[in-house]
Amino acid sequence: MKPTSLTDAIRTFHEHQTSLKPLKYANHLISFDGQTIAPKHPDSVQERANAQTYFAMELFRRHTDPQYDALISFLESHVSELDQSLQRMVYLERRSLNELKKIDPKDYAAYSELLTKAQVIWEQAKEKDDFSLFAPYLEKIIGYVRKFASLNKTVEGPLYNTLLDQYEEGMTIEKLDGFFATLKARIVPLLKAIQQSKKIIRKDFMKRSFPIHEQWAFAKEVLHLIGYDLQRGALAASVHPFTSEISPSDVRVTTHVYENQFISNLYSTAHEGGHGIYEQFIGPKVKGTLLGGGAAMSIHESQSRFYENVLGRSYAFSKVLFPLLKKRFKPQLNDVSLQEYYEAINEVKTSFIRTEADELTYSLHIMVRYELEKALIAGTLSVADLPKRWNELYDTYLGIKPKTYALGCLQDVHWSGGAFGYFPSYALGNAISLQWVQAMNKDLDVNRVMASSNLLPLRDWFEKHIYAHGKLYPPFELLKRVTKESLNPEPYCQYLETKFKKIYRLK
Amino acid sequence: MKPTSLTDAIRTFHEHQTSLKPLKYANHLISFDGQTIAPKHPDSVQERANAQTYFAMELFRRHTDPQYDALISFLESHVSELDQSLQRMVYLERRSLNELKKIDPKDYAAYSELLTKAQVIWEQAKEKDDFSLFAPYLEKIIGYVRKFASLNKTVEGPLYNTLLDQYEEGMTIEKLDGFFATLKARIVPLLKAIQQSKKIIRKDFMKRSFPIHEQWAFAKEVLHLIGYDLQRGALAASVHPFTSEISPSDVRVTTHVYENQFISNLYSTAHEGGHGIYEQFIGPKVKGTLLGGGAAMSIHESQSRFYENVLGRSYAFSKVLFPLLKKRFKPQLNDVSLQEYYEAINEVKTSFIRTEADELTYSLHIMVRYELEKALIAGTLSVADLPKRWNELYDTYLGIKPKTYALGCLQDVHWSGGAFGYFPSYALGNAISLQWVQAMNKDLDVNRVMASSNLLPLRDWFEKHIYAHGKLYPPFELLKRVTKESLNPEPYCQYLETKFKKIYRLK
Repeated sequence: MKPTSLTDAIRTFHEHQTSLKPLKYANHLISFDGQTIAPKHPDSVQERANAQTYFAMELFRRHTDPQYDALISFLESHVSELDQSLQRMVYLERRSLNELKKIDPKDYAAYSELLTKAQVIWEQAKEKDDFSLFAPYLEKIIGYVRKFASLNKTVEGPLYNTLLDQYEEGMTIEKLDGFFATLKARIVPLLKAIQQSKKIIRKDFMKRSFPIHEQWAFAKEVLHLIGYDLQRGALAASVHPFTSEISPSDVRVTTHVYENQFISNLYSTAHEGGHGIYEQFIGPKVKGTLLGGGAAMSIHESQSRFYENVLGRSYAFSKVLFPLLKKRFKPQLNDVSLQEYYEAINEVKTSFIRTEADELTYSLHIMVRYELEKALIAGTLSVADLPKRWNELYDTYLGIKPKTYALGCLQDVHWSGGAFGYFPSYALGNAISLQWVQAMNKDLDVNRVMASSNLLPLRDWFEKHIYAHGKLYPPFELLKRVTKESLNPEPYCQYLETKFKKIYRLK
Repeated sequence: MKPTSLTDAIRTFHEHQTSLKPLKYANHLISFDGQTIAPKHPDSVQERANAQTYFAMELFRRHTDPQYDALISFLESHVSELDQSLQRMVYLERRSLNELKKIDPKDYAAYSELLTKAQVIWEQAKEKDDFSLFAPYLEKIIGYVRKFASLNKTVEGPLYNTLLDQYEEGMTIEKLDGFFATLKARIVPLLKAIQQSKKIIRKDFMKRSFPIHEQWAFAKEVLHLIGYDLQRGALAASVHPFTSEISPSDVRVTTHVYENQFISNLYSTAHEGGHGIYEQFIGPKVKGTLLGGGAAMSIHESQSRFYENVLGRSYAFSKVLFPLLKKRFKPQLNDVSLQEYYEAINEVKTSFIRTEADELTYSLHIMVRYELEKALIAGTLSVADLPKRWNELYDTYLGIKPKTYALGCLQDVHWSGGAFGYFPSYALGNAISLQWVQAMNKDLDVNRVMASSNLLPLRDWFEKHIYAHGKLYPPFELLKRVTKESLNPEPYCQYLETKFKKIYRLK
């Protein structure tokens, strides 16, 4: 791999990326399959874990190959001669290389195998509502996460900063504490006012029986409507909905369907559709390269939360969606008006499950996890004490205490996958999605487009301003380029206040 | 890999097999996914083809590594010191190595990529009923198949013998011609008698609407009933049903579901269930090794055809199945009697689609393909002339001529996958399945078990006598060990005569 010239080095760099594609393809597919159709029998899981560990290790080995490291160093020494894309790729590769190369390959293999199994155990623990099944796995995962982050602290201060930095370049506890303080100061009084209001929201129809296969067909209709390309993707079922890029032209989304909670499938689908659209419409300049993905988790969530909420639960879009719903589910919705539907999907009600939470209380769920993660990573909270502390924080932030683990600390998939530091991205995404809307409104009448049967101008705008660049810019630089602003929770808070005061007829 | 001792050589051999498992896992999963959920957009297909070609090539490279060849030669030179399993593994590896090592890796890569694309093109050609789309692909596939077989002729005589030998060790055109002559001599007169009989079979209910999702649920019920283990497998949808071993504890089956042809899904599921059961219950001594698979395609088809027909379409089993069907599909089957159902699923009627053919005419469909393959491989029939010749042979054997390509030469998946020489295995499987029944009847009352709600004694018997050995014995040696007989179409012919004379009230 030793380069003889810069041209040679650049060619070798690109060849190296191309050579990894089949391994990444296999890795992504095995993971997607594991969460959708693959059998859960321990023997099947073990065989899958073996295969997945092999690919994770092979990618690890290729990535941390000293020759590749030398190649990156060579390119770094010529950084001023590289174009902007290559500069960014080299920067990102150096970052991840520094992170990986300090990890003992044995630890990496053990961790990869642990995650494959933890995924299944978490599902079982949740199903059986038995935290003790999952606890030893979580303990081990946290051990590895702390160990790996300690080996390569990229940010000063607490270890958790390094985890945040992995998802959101440059994000710190200090900045997030301020961000969440603003959200809390604006959301909590609004929530109290709503709880004291006399507004009655009709919701009897929300628990009616909607046939699974019809819901399934409708989910595809929604994906099509918002501009997700089913020809270059697929919709599958999984316990926890997710989006997976198998290859640049194969970006799949999943959902879950419950007969008596049609809303759950509907807005999960819109959420994952948002992620899917982002990955599907990555700009041609960066597609298929190292920059061919979302800029950061917050920017990704700004898309999923936009399609789920800002669009999905808007009155404007409900005017389009509800007649379609009514057409397909006539007996279930015949006696329901648009206004009743709109109010029902926006009912504010403190509840246990984050993914089913209303828009207003959602960020409070995130704050609970943020507090817990900080403490788990700092070592001031043990896994054994997690369920108790979870319940205490739910009481503090939302005034409710879950009675089961499934409704409590076993509800989310993230920790079973080692994703510590990810949760804040949801709240950041909420705030950022409204910063986009503010910018978008300068180019088009967002509300009018949302109420029309052609939503593609929204996707086109995102494509031009966000998707086109992939990972070319760090997230908060991208935000600034597009909106001329830094991270700012104000538009989001105003949006929540306007929307919910109107629904609940508050002053 | 150079062995220092026999013990060392054996260890290296096993390590080599273990090291291939993740690659095989990926290869099988990408293929399964490609035929079930993966998007069909040309860009997605190209990316998938790239990944699949990589894995095919990597397996090819590892397989044809001269060091591995030397290892096999070393083991061959100590063959008398090896146990029976190792002897067989070394024999099979030498066989496939000799076959592969003469192939130019570039040809192999081009062929692998061609097959991935041909799979999709065939589906499209079938859908659009346009043979010209598929013809150039088929031409190229046949070119490669002939080229590869010519490089390593394992059997004297026509090239097609070498292809037959790949699926059925030791099978030749000479033997098959005799086998098919017997079938033809016994089936054709019976078919004529049936066509002249006055028996009227009620079948109005066969085209009634059976909701897709209910059919889907029933397919799982059938799989469970016959003893397929859904915990170590999965049921998925594909254009052409198939069975795929992703890993030893993850054997999946697929089916297709049409609203107005509930029978199609039902017996496809039973057919693939038979394949699946075989792979799932491979004996523990050979499971996960090179011998951990079906002994040959004929033996595999003896299982699928047994579960589909000998069991599936028997009067005995219908007594179990029909009440379950009636329970789930009450409005559709309320006015149908068991006898009417039994007669309808066994109606003899010359038709175009092999997979939907009745038991009696099925082998005639195979004979058409057998004649065509012989001529295509011999070079006496061109791809351009294939549709015409297909139609002529259908006229000769079945007295009907398909009016579309989809009902004619585009109906089967096999050729798009390069599987020439496979079709005869279906007919062999039919005959062999009745040889098993003859042997089984010495140990248990097969008819009584079929009419009971517990079918597992059938699976147990197969497990003990067939599945236990995997590929340890060549197919016709296995047949002889279990039945004390060589290949013998007589029990099958008698079975057909007894069954259909009774249904059609012939003497």
